[in-house]
Amino acid sequence: MRSKDMPIGIFDSGIGGLTVLKEIINKLPAENTVYLGDTARVPYGIRSPETVTRYSFENTRFLFSKHIKLLVMACNTASSISLDAVRQSVSLPVVGVIEPGARAAVSATRNGKIGVIGTDATVRSNAYANAIRALDASAEVFSLPCPLFVPLVEEGWTEGTVAELTAGTYLSDIRDKGIDTLVLGCTHYPLLKAVISKTMGPDVKLIDSAIETAFAIRDILSELSLLRADQAAGSREFYVTDSPEKFVAVGERFLGSRIDVITKIELSSEV
Amino acid sequence: MRSKDMPIGIFDSGIGGLTVLKEIINKLPAENTVYLGDTARVPYGIRSPETVTRYSFENTRFLFSKHIKLLVMACNTASSISLDAVRQSVSLPVVGVIEPGARAAVSATRNGKIGVIGTDATVRSNAYANAIRALDASAEVFSLPCPLFVPLVEEGWTEGTVAELTAGTYLSDIRDKGIDTLVLGCTHYPLLKAVISKTMGPDVKLIDSAIETAFAIRDILSELSLLRADQAAGSREFYVTDSPEKFVAVGERFLGSRIDVITKIELSSEV
Repeated sequence: MRSKDMPIGIFDSGIGGLTVLKEIINKLPAENTVYLGDTARVPYGIRSPETVTRYSFENTRFLFSKHIKLLVMACNTASSISLDAVRQSVSLPVVGVIEPGARAAVSATRNGKIGVIGTDATVRSNAYANAIRALDASAEVFSLPCPLFVPLVEEGWTEGTVAELTAGTYLSDIRDKGIDTLVLGCTHYPLLKAVISKTMGPDVKLIDSAIETAFAIRDILSELSLLRADQAAGSREFYVTDSPEKFVAVGERFLGSRIDVITKIELSSEV
Repeated sequence: MRSKDMPIGIFDSGIGGLTVLKEIINKLPAENTVYLGDTARVPYGIRSPETVTRYSFENTRFLFSKHIKLLVMACNTASSISLDAVRQSVSLPVVGVIEPGARAAVSATRNGKIGVIGTDATVRSNAYANAIRALDASAEVFSLPCPLFVPLVEEGWTEGTVAELTAGTYLSDIRDKGIDTLVLGCTHYPLLKAVISKTMGPDVKLIDSAIETAFAIRDILSELSLLRADQAAGSREFYVTDSPEKFVAVGERFLGSRIDVITKIELSSEV
């Protein structure tokens, strides 16, 4: 039996999903949360669909052992590839980042031309294009992988000449398509917002899935009468698969708050 | 009992170690080889020493099951961090890429000032600096992590403005130290040789560990009377932990020959 006090379980390949957790905390501060970052196997965006799906199931299995009331796949690659398979295999509501981002893009566009940037695996899956066209069959979607954006963010080179030239090289084609809306289809990309915005120009609206995902979570919990009403802030637990030091250092900057309760775990492929 | 016909086992986090395999094939064409690329968990250079060591042992265990006569850790990160631990735990000769590279650098330098570039994990380990100073206590070693070089190579941006600016940003400090020798301490970096050489200038000698490692393997097999004398070319087997398609496509370019026998496996942490 699910109860309001049970935590929301969130997983990502690493630290990127903390942008989603941050929005959950902003909008639903009373919720208890358990976050898993699979830092021993990050990044997912360069891997095959089979491997991403296997990792998603292992992450899901671990979070289930924490008695969660809702599962958030806060990773665009995992959401793109394995959301349906995970949904079909579990008895809990599962929220990905694709549908909320697609909804926001369809709402935002004026000319029906939408760009999507993400990892190789996300773009190859066509998940955003399919989700956008399911909402608006007439929308034109232009998708593009930008593999160097994640390492640029990880290296902290989110501004300056290298970031600008890289953005310019990747985005010139998609800019020439006349899109007026661009989905940042990877949790790392919002950190490059300034550079991407400069490259695309002021008329292109950037969509950050993290914010939209938090709204989707609130709606679902509300519909299921599972919103936690407590006045006090919820508890925060973190799990990682590699050593916590770097995660804590970078993560506290991402979150803007302390990461106190963090444990290194080893994931298993056994059922 | 080891025999000449047993294969040499080689592992790397992914495709980079194929530069080492290529040199082994060039110098020792009759040797049978088994190569393991841990593509489901690449890259190693961003992970903690504990996790790199765990992965190295899992890779070693798998190659042992193939009845190898010698183990090559064709990954600078794994060699830097876990060579000693693996050597102590197994009864076979184990060759890493650090010592051969260090030896070549000490031979090449005229002014005793040696630069080393590599992943975060390799540089933090100080393995190259220690190996160089063990050979020449008076050598001055300047080490520098270049985390974006691996994703640049993976993306195929090995020339052009972004590669040149990235190299310029990383290498300007180390260039100003007056080094005359630079160790390319990561198996991906030889693919950026042209850009690195242009940045460092014609007076700096670049050291490619792959070539030196193949010489070290020949010496050890010769000393142990384990060199295969056959006239025919040796057999080639490949194993990967993610799906083989991308590995084969990129790998055949690296190797300059076909990859016919390749199998996807799942590694286990169980003894």
